[in-house]
Amino acid sequence: LNYGMPEHTRQMLNSLSAADIAHLLESSPPRQRSILWKLIPVEDEGDVLNEMGEEVRQFFIDQMNIQELISIFEDQDVDDIADILQQLPKQITYRVLDSMDYQNRQRVEEVLAYPENTAGGLMNTDTVTVRKDITVEVALRYLRQHNSLPQPLDQLLVVDRFDQFQGAVPISDLLTADPSTLLADLIDHAIQPVPVSMEDTHVAQLFEREDLVSAPVVDESCHLLGRITVDDVVDVIRDEAEHSIMSMAGLDEDEDTFAPVLRTTRRRAVWLGINLITAFIASGVIGLFQETIDQVVALAVLMPIVASMGGIAGSQTLTLIIRAMALGQIGKSNTTWLLTREGLVGLLNGLFWAIVVSAAAMVWFDDQTITLVIGLSMVINLVVAVLSGAMLPLVLKSLDIDPALAGSVILTTITDVVGFLSFLGLATLFYT
Amino acid sequence: LNYGMPEHTRQMLNSLSAADIAHLLESSPPRQRSILWKLIPVEDEGDVLNEMGEEVRQFFIDQMNIQELISIFEDQDVDDIADILQQLPKQITYRVLDSMDYQNRQRVEEVLAYPENTAGGLMNTDTVTVRKDITVEVALRYLRQHNSLPQPLDQLLVVDRFDQFQGAVPISDLLTADPSTLLADLIDHAIQPVPVSMEDTHVAQLFEREDLVSAPVVDESCHLLGRITVDDVVDVIRDEAEHSIMSMAGLDEDEDTFAPVLRTTRRRAVWLGINLITAFIASGVIGLFQETIDQVVALAVLMPIVASMGGIAGSQTLTLIIRAMALGQIGKSNTTWLLTREGLVGLLNGLFWAIVVSAAAMVWFDDQTITLVIGLSMVINLVVAVLSGAMLPLVLKSLDIDPALAGSVILTTITDVVGFLSFLGLATLFYT
Repeated sequence: LNYGMPEHTRQMLNSLSAADIAHLLESSPPRQRSILWKLIPVEDEGDVLNEMGEEVRQFFIDQMNIQELISIFEDQDVDDIADILQQLPKQITYRVLDSMDYQNRQRVEEVLAYPENTAGGLMNTDTVTVRKDITVEVALRYLRQHNSLPQPLDQLLVVDRFDQFQGAVPISDLLTADPSTLLADLIDHAIQPVPVSMEDTHVAQLFEREDLVSAPVVDESCHLLGRITVDDVVDVIRDEAEHSIMSMAGLDEDEDTFAPVLRTTRRRAVWLGINLITAFIASGVIGLFQETIDQVVALAVLMPIVASMGGIAGSQTLTLIIRAMALGQIGKSNTTWLLTREGLVGLLNGLFWAIVVSAAAMVWFDDQTITLVIGLSMVINLVVAVLSGAMLPLVLKSLDIDPALAGSVILTTITDVVGFLSFLGLATLFYT
Repeated sequence: LNYGMPEHTRQMLNSLSAADIAHLLESSPPRQRSILWKLIPVEDEGDVLNEMGEEVRQFFIDQMNIQELISIFEDQDVDDIADILQQLPKQITYRVLDSMDYQNRQRVEEVLAYPENTAGGLMNTDTVTVRKDITVEVALRYLRQHNSLPQPLDQLLVVDRFDQFQGAVPISDLLTADPSTLLADLIDHAIQPVPVSMEDTHVAQLFEREDLVSAPVVDESCHLLGRITVDDVVDVIRDEAEHSIMSMAGLDEDEDTFAPVLRTTRRRAVWLGINLITAFIASGVIGLFQETIDQVVALAVLMPIVASMGGIAGSQTLTLIIRAMALGQIGKSNTTWLLTREGLVGLLNGLFWAIVVSAAAMVWFDDQTITLVIGLSMVINLVVAVLSGAMLPLVLKSLDIDPALAGSVILTTITDVVGFLSFLGLATLFYT
């Protein structure tokens, strides 16, 4: 692929879909990326950009001039144009908007007016609307007049002459109904419109729960604004899931797998720096007990066990609660139950592993005091760890801090500090 | 909700969709769950069970007798029945199958014949098929004869009289075409059938990439077997994402948030036990250097820093590579590039943080040897950590071990051992 034969590669690229080309570019290191990009036909560039992750897209957008950008936006869906425009500097956005015809420009500006992470930012404005007083036959004739219909078409949206949303008629009902049936009689009242300000993660939960393919979007006074389709919702679900996974390691969900060395180093350094503070706090705690360690060096050998078991137990609870919160399972009525459950689980596991670890310590060092100290501190640290793991996400959420990002760092600080403090503290108490 | 007023609650439950009731049950502690379940109308129980996570579903299934189970399967989709049957003991499955009429039984057995995590396990057998030599008008008349059509209906599947798949006609094209057009002329050749043995995660990638709503499923000789719909694919994506997040903490993706104390304790204990082995290995390494620590107690204070920074750096790389593998971005052609990049990132971050940590150690302990030792071991551990983080998922995958589950435990073992070994080993070298 990399050397020679551009003609051959060009042919191969022509046989791939835009999504496949985007995937190929995302899976290539920077140099190959630029080579491949030049081989893509100009008219396909827009489609390929649409299918890409934000960071990789930025890489290509940065290399384009205004004229190239403008040509890319031709023939794109309104919501996709809005998506890309949000990545551009303000000034360039204005120049691109200026280049569009009036109708398109208005549509794009409408979508841009809503925050990216709401129903408004997800919606598309190309809908097929009908009046409720027409028959199935008329509706079918009306549809036939279109050259193409927006995809996927699973329902016709019924509005009045003020564009007020009246209901939706599933296409499958339209196809099985008698031609003389009025659309008013086919409206499926289970189909509820989505308010334009609904958060995108809530939209995703709604689609998942109700198995939707598309959903109408309305403003506060129930005017139809557009519709959301399941393909965009799938992206929201994927992004949300990646956000949880990536931010636990201090990474961004749009992170380019093949980002160059220096950019990667700089980004990771930030996270390492934050964690270094945690590590120094833990060291500070150990530093308080230097004299005790000097007396009983076995303490230094065993102390990481207490801290690390606390970290593991806490992160299990943290993960479970973050997921439950994402699924909307946590409310006032069940937090007490959950905290009690976690506390008991921590206590039982603390007692069990305290016995195991104490026995091992007894065999290893043949010292009753150290056996007692490590057992006690295991129980303390495991209980504190699971309770912190359960409460941290709730506290962080109420402070509007992302628990997936900050949770594990704060939790590790707590489990390290409590682990070293209880172990070395108890040891100091018992040995002196 | 919990006390009294069952009539009131019953009314509220009647106004909720099956998905909402399932969500409510999943968000309730065990006791409320049983109370709520009794208030659900028997005819809705099947729908509610379908919308639940596996573990919570098991809770209710365990309490049912055969007759109740059989009644629940009435009016359910074939793939949903198959899903639940897979959770039942073999003997009960046979008795439920016996209770079905011949046609339904055959359909369910067909789906059960395919592994759960393949296209065959995901598919539904209710499809609308047509011949390619009929006109649009005839096709519409044919559709109108149905009482209801399978949802979502985005395409008609064209087969010959041997049920060989011939292509698919998008409904939107059917609606805009002239009534006299032959379906043969409307077949969209971009729509490719999915082989029945395709892995479910690949099916999900295909749906995501091509923005599909449904896809036909065929066997090796291209016979149409059924179709997969996007709502089931959304579940696969969600499950896959949850699997990654949950298994990093040693949890199961179907884990019931409100599982009782004892079951939770037992499950978590397993993961804590595995991690305890890691912790003891690390302690063993420290134990080798007790004499050195006895000489210079500052080593005990600083040693967790080296190990923990390695753990963080490694887990960043691990997370990135696991995600890239899930997205299908990693192949032979780019692993060398990635390993080189990660090695360089580790080296640069190692050097940078070595300077920072050394400076801090110098200020704290005013000891040139310890400054040198911690700097050197930081560089060693960070390089080893990122390279292990990058290679581990590839190695584990080739051994058919889930990297999300085993990756972090093994990585921690490596970074702890290398961290303590390099730091205390170098210290021993320099101090004696």
